[in-house]
Amino acid sequence: MTDDVTTRAALAYLRDHESAGLGRLAEFVGIPSVSALPDHRADVAAAADFLATELSRSGYQNVTTHPTNGHPIVTADLFTAPAGAPTILVYGHFDVQPVEPLDEWVSPPWTMTERDGRLYGRGVTDDKGQLWAHLRAIEALLAAGDGRAPVNVRVVAEGEEEIGSPSIGPFITANPDLFAADLALVSDSPAYAENVPAIGYSLRGLCSVEVTLRTLAGDLHSGQFGGAVPNATVELATLITTFHDRDGKVAVAGFYDDMAPVADTELAALSELPFDQDGWLRQAGAAALVGERGYGPLELTWTRPTLEINGVYGGHTGAGGKTIVPAEATAKISCRLVPGMRPGPTLDRVRGHIERHLPPYVTATVTTLGGAGDPYYIEPTGPTFDLATAALETSFQARAWLIRDGGSIPIVPILATGADLPVLLLGFGCPNENKHAPNEWLPLRHYRLGQETLVRFLTRLGATWGQKGQTP
Amino acid sequence: MTDDVTTRAALAYLRDHESAGLGRLAEFVGIPSVSALPDHRADVAAAADFLATELSRSGYQNVTTHPTNGHPIVTADLFTAPAGAPTILVYGHFDVQPVEPLDEWVSPPWTMTERDGRLYGRGVTDDKGQLWAHLRAIEALLAAGDGRAPVNVRVVAEGEEEIGSPSIGPFITANPDLFAADLALVSDSPAYAENVPAIGYSLRGLCSVEVTLRTLAGDLHSGQFGGAVPNATVELATLITTFHDRDGKVAVAGFYDDMAPVADTELAALSELPFDQDGWLRQAGAAALVGERGYGPLELTWTRPTLEINGVYGGHTGAGGKTIVPAEATAKISCRLVPGMRPGPTLDRVRGHIERHLPPYVTATVTTLGGAGDPYYIEPTGPTFDLATAALETSFQARAWLIRDGGSIPIVPILATGADLPVLLLGFGCPNENKHAPNEWLPLRHYRLGQETLVRFLTRLGATWGQKGQTP
Repeated sequence: MTDDVTTRAALAYLRDHESAGLGRLAEFVGIPSVSALPDHRADVAAAADFLATELSRSGYQNVTTHPTNGHPIVTADLFTAPAGAPTILVYGHFDVQPVEPLDEWVSPPWTMTERDGRLYGRGVTDDKGQLWAHLRAIEALLAAGDGRAPVNVRVVAEGEEEIGSPSIGPFITANPDLFAADLALVSDSPAYAENVPAIGYSLRGLCSVEVTLRTLAGDLHSGQFGGAVPNATVELATLITTFHDRDGKVAVAGFYDDMAPVADTELAALSELPFDQDGWLRQAGAAALVGERGYGPLELTWTRPTLEINGVYGGHTGAGGKTIVPAEATAKISCRLVPGMRPGPTLDRVRGHIERHLPPYVTATVTTLGGAGDPYYIEPTGPTFDLATAALETSFQARAWLIRDGGSIPIVPILATGADLPVLLLGFGCPNENKHAPNEWLPLRHYRLGQETLVRFLTRLGATWGQKGQTP
Repeated sequence: MTDDVTTRAALAYLRDHESAGLGRLAEFVGIPSVSALPDHRADVAAAADFLATELSRSGYQNVTTHPTNGHPIVTADLFTAPAGAPTILVYGHFDVQPVEPLDEWVSPPWTMTERDGRLYGRGVTDDKGQLWAHLRAIEALLAAGDGRAPVNVRVVAEGEEEIGSPSIGPFITANPDLFAADLALVSDSPAYAENVPAIGYSLRGLCSVEVTLRTLAGDLHSGQFGGAVPNATVELATLITTFHDRDGKVAVAGFYDDMAPVADTELAALSELPFDQDGWLRQAGAAALVGERGYGPLELTWTRPTLEINGVYGGHTGAGGKTIVPAEATAKISCRLVPGMRPGPTLDRVRGHIERHLPPYVTATVTTLGGAGDPYYIEPTGPTFDLATAALETSFQARAWLIRDGGSIPIVPILATGADLPVLLLGFGCPNENKHAPNEWLPLRHYRLGQETLVRFLTRLGATWGQKGQTP
C-alpha cells in the first residue's frame, strides 16, 4: 500500500503529537473507572466526561452523554467527509476491570507507565488505550485534511462492557439513528501475537447456567448417616463426568447439531498460522492438551463449541474438616458457542441432559446466568478486508492474518444484528496482555502502528468506497 | 432388678431435689461456653469454675482446674466407698457447640426451657445435661449413704470436646494417676430412641484429608483456553467418582483389609432391633437409601467403614458467572473406620488411590486434617453389661438394647488405650436431639430415668464387685 499525501501528513501529525497524545491517555487511564464496583460509580462518570470533553475538543458534533440504568453511554459524530464517503462506527468502552490484587502490580495501575517498550496500567489495552488510538488516528486525519476526514465517523463508547453491557442492547433499539453507519470498527480484541497483526472475523458466543443439586433436607452427621444417604457433592461429581465422552466431545445430545460447518479452505488457512503448541501450553501453565481428540488448540478454541465447568462448591468449604454428608452442591457451567449455535437452544439441551442424568433421589435447580451472547461470523473476504490487511501489513511490515477469537464480545453480534452493521475486529492488543489481571500492558509499538494502520485504512476506504460495488 | 434400701433412699432424694437440680443445670446451661469461638474463652473458663464449685460443694476432693494450651480440664475424686469397691471414672465435657443460626431457636439457647416434656437449650444433652445427671445420681447416692457412695468416683471434664479434644490425650499421658480406675462411664451418646434405652459398645473411628488438584498455573480465560486445557474441577469430579464402585463399595485398594469381622450373632442381634427404614429416611430427608448394596442403614452406619466427601470447591464460587477454566479444586474427604482399622494405614491407602487415579497432567496436594480417632469396640457381655442392662430396664421399664454408634468420640478409644480403661457408653440423649443444631433438646424423662439408672447401676456394681471374678 502506497501512502498518499493525506496519509503522509496524518502520519507526520501522529509522530509530532505522540507525546501529547500519550499524556492525555495517561490522564484517561488515571481515572479508576471500575464499572463492577459501586464505589467507583463517579469515576466511571468521570471517564465518560473526559471522553466527551476530548471528543468536543477534537471537533465532533452532537457529543452526548446518555444516562442509563447503570453507567452512561457517550455518542458523538463527525460528518466532515466528502459526499459518497462511508460512515464508520467506532465502538469502545471507558470502563475497566478491578485492579486487585494490588500488590502484584509492578507499577501502580492508575499511573500509566512506560517500561521496556510497553505501556502498563489498567485499561491501556482494554480498552482505553485502543479506543484512544482510534481517536488519535481520526484527529490526525482531520488535521491532515484541514478539518475534513476521509470518512464520516460515529463514536459509541460505553461504561458497562466489563459488567456484560446490559444497557447497550436496549440503547441500540431505542436509538437506531445513532448507529446508522456502513461499517463498525471494534478494537477490543488482540492481534495474533506481538508484532503479528491480524483481523478477526469470528467470535464465539456464550451462555451460562448454575445447577444446584439437592439430596437431603439438610447436611447430615456423617457418623450417623454417612455411607447410607446420597451425598450431593458425589452426585454433582458424577453429573460433571457425564458432560464429556471419552474422546473429549461434549456428550449433551444435539450439542453440535446447529454448528455451521467450517470450510476446508478456512481450516487450511488456519493450519498455516505460525503456532507453537509447546509455547502455548507453557503460556497456559498446562502440562497437556486435552479436549476433543483430533483437534489442535486453535481449532479447539476457535472453531469448536465447549462446555466448561467454571466453578463448583458444596458442603464444607471452610478451613479444616467437618464431618457432614452435604445436602447441596452447585456447579457453574458455561458454553462457548460457535457460529450457527444460539444460547437458548444450547441451554435447553444442557437442561435436558441434566434432567436425564440425575438419579430419582436427586433434585436439581438450574438457573440461567447473565452475560449470554451470540457468536459472530463475517466472511473475511472482499475489498474492506483486503484494505485492512494491506493497511496492517504496510504499517507493521509483517504479514497480517485473518483470525477467529475464542472469546465473546457481546456487543459485536448486537451491532451486527441489532444495528445491521458489518463489524471488523481490528485490535492491537496482545494475547498475553494481562487483560483483567495485574500489569495489563500494550506494546507502545502496537499503539503507534495501530494508529498508522487506521490512518491508512480509513484514508483508502474513503477514497475507494463505492468503487467496484464495494461493501464490507 | 430389685431396689435395696440405699437405692430407694437415693431415688427419693432425686425426686425431692429435682427442681433444685434443674435450677442448677439451668445455670450451667446459661454459661455460653462455646469452645470454638475465641470470644467465648472466658465463658468456657466460667463453665469450668461452675463445675469445680459444684464438685467441691458435693464433697469431692482434689478438685482441680488444670490449664491447657486451650481450655481447662477439671478433675476431682470421691473416694468414700467401702474397701474393695470399684473406681468409676465419669467423663463429660462442659463446652458446647456454637448456637447460630440464632433465629431458628424457638426459645433462647442460653435459657434452659421446659416445653412438652423436653428440656431445650444449648448443651442440655451435649453434654452439660448428661454430665449433670451423673453428678446428681452420685450426689443422691452420697446423701443416701450418709456421705459414702457405693463406688469410688473420679470425674474428668474437659472444655475442648467440641473442637476435637486436642489437650486430653497428652493430659492422660502426663497424669496417669488421675485416670486410675476400673471402668469409665461416658454419657455423651444417645439412647437407641426416645424411651428405648441402650448401651453402646462400639464407635467408628475417623480420619480426614483435604486434596487439592492443580491443572494450570492459574485460572485461564475460558474463551481463549477453554476446551483445550485441563479443568481442575472436572479432574476433581472424575477423581471423586473413582472412590466408590458401582455396588457402593469403597474402591480404594485394601480399604476393607483390616476390618475385624462382625460376628453372625451380632448381626442377628442387630436385625432384631426395632427399625423403620422409611421413618429413618424421612428423618434424614433423603429419598433413597444408597451405599454398599446388600446392607441396611444400621449395618451401613454401624458396621461398615465409609469414605465420604464432606465438601468441594474450586474455580468461581461467588454470585453469578465467571468464564474461567479453574486451575485448582479441593475436596474434603473423611473416612469412618470400624474396629480393626486405624487412621494411619487408611489415609495411606487413600493417598495411594489418589496418586494412582490422576492423569499425569494433574498435580495433587493431600493434607491430613485434624480430628482423627480410632474406632472403639468392647465385647458387650459379662456382669457389668448385665448390670447396666438391668438398671436401664428397671428404670425405663423397657427393653434395653446393645448398640453400636456410627459416630466417633475420640476420647473413648483414648481412655480405652491411653488409660487402659473399659468404657461403657451409657447415654441418655435421643438420636434426633438436634445436637449441634438449633433447638437442642433432651427428654425430661430421659434426664430423670438416666439418673435412676445410674443410681441402680452404681449401687449394684459396688455391691457385687469382685464376686464371680467380675471385671467389666
